[in-house]
Amino acid sequence: MIPLELYLENQRALIDQVLAGFIERQSDTPSILLEAMSYSLQGGGKRLRPILALAAGEATRADPEIILPAACALELIHTYSLIHDDLPAMDNDDFRRGKPTSHKVFGEATAILAGDALLTMAFQVLSSEGLAERVNPKALLQVIREIASACGPAGMIGGQVMDVMSEGKSITPATLESIHTRKTAALIRASVRIGALLSEAPPAELRALTRFGEHLGLGFQIADDVLDVIGEEKALGKRTGGDARQKKATYPALLGLEAAKSLAHEQIEQASAALSTMGPSAQHLRELASYVGLRIDLGGRT
Amino acid sequence: MIPLELYLENQRALIDQVLAGFIERQSDTPSILLEAMSYSLQGGGKRLRPILALAAGEATRADPEIILPAACALELIHTYSLIHDDLPAMDNDDFRRGKPTSHKVFGEATAILAGDALLTMAFQVLSSEGLAERVNPKALLQVIREIASACGPAGMIGGQVMDVMSEGKSITPATLESIHTRKTAALIRASVRIGALLSEAPPAELRALTRFGEHLGLGFQIADDVLDVIGEEKALGKRTGGDARQKKATYPALLGLEAAKSLAHEQIEQASAALSTMGPSAQHLRELASYVGLRIDLGGRT
Repeated sequence: MIPLELYLENQRALIDQVLAGFIERQSDTPSILLEAMSYSLQGGGKRLRPILALAAGEATRADPEIILPAACALELIHTYSLIHDDLPAMDNDDFRRGKPTSHKVFGEATAILAGDALLTMAFQVLSSEGLAERVNPKALLQVIREIASACGPAGMIGGQVMDVMSEGKSITPATLESIHTRKTAALIRASVRIGALLSEAPPAELRALTRFGEHLGLGFQIADDVLDVIGEEKALGKRTGGDARQKKATYPALLGLEAAKSLAHEQIEQASAALSTMGPSAQHLRELASYVGLRIDLGGRT
Repeated sequence: MIPLELYLENQRALIDQVLAGFIERQSDTPSILLEAMSYSLQGGGKRLRPILALAAGEATRADPEIILPAACALELIHTYSLIHDDLPAMDNDDFRRGKPTSHKVFGEATAILAGDALLTMAFQVLSSEGLAERVNPKALLQVIREIASACGPAGMIGGQVMDVMSEGKSITPATLESIHTRKTAALIRASVRIGALLSEAPPAELRALTRFGEHLGLGFQIADDVLDVIGEEKALGKRTGGDARQKKATYPALLGLEAAKSLAHEQIEQASAALSTMGPSAQHLRELASYVGLRIDLGGRT
């Protein structure tokens, strides 16, 4: 096992433990709702967003205990977005991460409400008393603002609206970049930034990490498009080729597979370049960027 | 026009202006999404939750400018909950406040996303820079925590899950009270509390207002059940009798109409009693409680 994989495995175990704790502490909640929330939270996500927040915290020398709850709130939001994206009225997906989607297991009403609950719980976690006591409250409010903005109407939700609207239509590369920036890159950028915001990093470091997050976010989404074409179904845990079947606008469809691969690698290189002024504490962020590139070359098999 | 009605009209105009401003300031958002958000935000809601927050601010001598954004965030959350409740997978309602529901006008995908966007925007508003500069940041974090908790899995969303699950089943009065407490009363209680929290009111006042909010919230929901049976369709702007058609558990169905009316009035009296230690600044809160009682007697015609 290469050192990064060991690191990722340890971080995932830590994140999974915190997420399970969130669910356990939700007392007095209808059990079917908790079950639906827990079902989608478990089950093999990459945990990229919390891992990025923690790595950005490392890079800016934060106490990981302070970053961890906010990092895991990002995963609550990511999970809610997947549940709602999969609904029959949206992408109508039956499988996600190798398991039947939430609405297939719990029905549409509970799936919608489980998504709503995970989104709301993210803000419960971010404003929790324990966190508010240990962090500068102004920094915590900025974190809440950044996350709400990244996943709000001009961010992730706006991107999903544009994505649904563009199905079966021909769009320009500029529009596609705008969809991807909103739908995926905005929350990835925020993930990196909140690590730095919570550790009250100096402005120059915050700027460098912001640029890193923007390029990584876009590179990651292009890589995801590419993997939907070339990835092995077993490695990805879902049926691939779904984008093409749904006539979704993707980078491979718009530019061709090889050009899309190059563009993803280019974004990832720019992400790494953004860290040139950061010291050795940013090593895990650098390795995470390389890892996204490696996944493309290996067809999702890492 | 009686003085309370003039007061309500003025408060509604103020709230509508702030809500319109929220939408206008959402630059760089897909226009169809903004249109759907705006469609449901406009159109004749009672604005009970923001009015209660503002009146609780009055009662605790707060600057109304500080309460107003948070008060309107409550209406964003209430509106999102109505859009999602009306969806085909939930109550499957075609009309709301006399207009076709969001999914009838914009389609299911956009309706789900408009709900998600309004919920997320509430937290953007609550954590906005302008507010964070004028309010004690710790009080603001507590407000965010209270609202997220009231509309979270143990609150409003949990109540909706229980409501959907109980359709066509016979349930106990205790279960019905638990549904109503979560689904409606929790956010009404929070509405009253945030006025007091933002003005950093003394603990005794906060306790009195909390009891007021709890009783008013439950009284209001029982009144709503009663009005669904006896209310005039035109006055309420929606088809009445919907609860009975959907075999929903309600107080009139469980206890009979007259007993349900008495229970609503009883809760409203207890709400007023909770304010006995408060001075004349709580006058609007007292009148709001009487107003909820009056609506029952007049069949929704106020």
